[in-house]
Amino acid sequence: MTDHDHKLDVIAAYVDGFDRADAEALADLYAEEATVEDPVGAARIMGRDAIRGFYRTAVARGIKLEMSGSPRTSGDSVAFPFHVHRQSGGRDEIIEVIDVFRLDAEGRIVEMRAYWGPQNIKPRP
Amino acid sequence: MTDHDHKLDVIAAYVDGFDRADAEALADLYAEEATVEDPVGAARIMGRDAIRGFYRTAVARGIKLEMSGSPRTSGDSVAFPFHVHRQSGGRDEIIEVIDVFRLDAEGRIVEMRAYWGPQNIKPRP
Repeated sequence: MTDHDHKLDVIAAYVDGFDRADAEALADLYAEEATVEDPVGAARIMGRDAIRGFYRTAVARGIKLEMSGSPRTSGDSVAFPFHVHRQSGGRDEIIEVIDVFRLDAEGRIVEMRAYWGPQNIKPRP
Repeated sequence: MTDHDHKLDVIAAYVDGFDRADAEALADLYAEEATVEDPVGAARIMGRDAIRGFYRTAVARGIKLEMSGSPRTSGDSVAFPFHVHRQSGGRDEIIEVIDVFRLDAEGRIVEMRAYWGPQNIKPRP
């Protein structure tokens, strides 16, 4: 379950989970012992329960995702570029992000790493 | 030496090294004990000498890089999307790639991971 089409399905379900503000569905994409590092360099969130809390906060802020290039599937992993759309202080912002998912044999995410920094936060054009 | 501007300089030097077909300059961006995994899932290339050989082969094939989005700097790392331009069997191809560089305290690359797969190889439009 680490083939290319499955990885595309996981990414589509990930974007859809934000569209529907469904933190449960987002957490269900993860293995129980998964970790999330968002952004890379921050403390890692350990385990699906903590990950569910992370997504509850995110969807409560109204965050939506928009793909900005092709997913790159490679071994047990997939990297993909996207824009986060959010409101901050009453203004529309985008954040340019690259996420890397590593999947287990069952096709669930075991490691998520989100690459972005302050320079990637921009007013929405 | 892991700040945003330095990371942009490293990426610019990386693209430039391919433009000038300069494998020595590309290898000099790396720490002596660095590793390269290209694509992710393949055997890792260990150490700057082996990495130099890897880039000699790449530049001898005439490979050039074109950025296709903003670099995402995050902690000690930077991820960036680009296209490889190459000729294969007399035809122009692109490969959509996302590279992740992890840098050491001196600002040299200690780990490079390249995300791409067969589905990312496309005829050049």
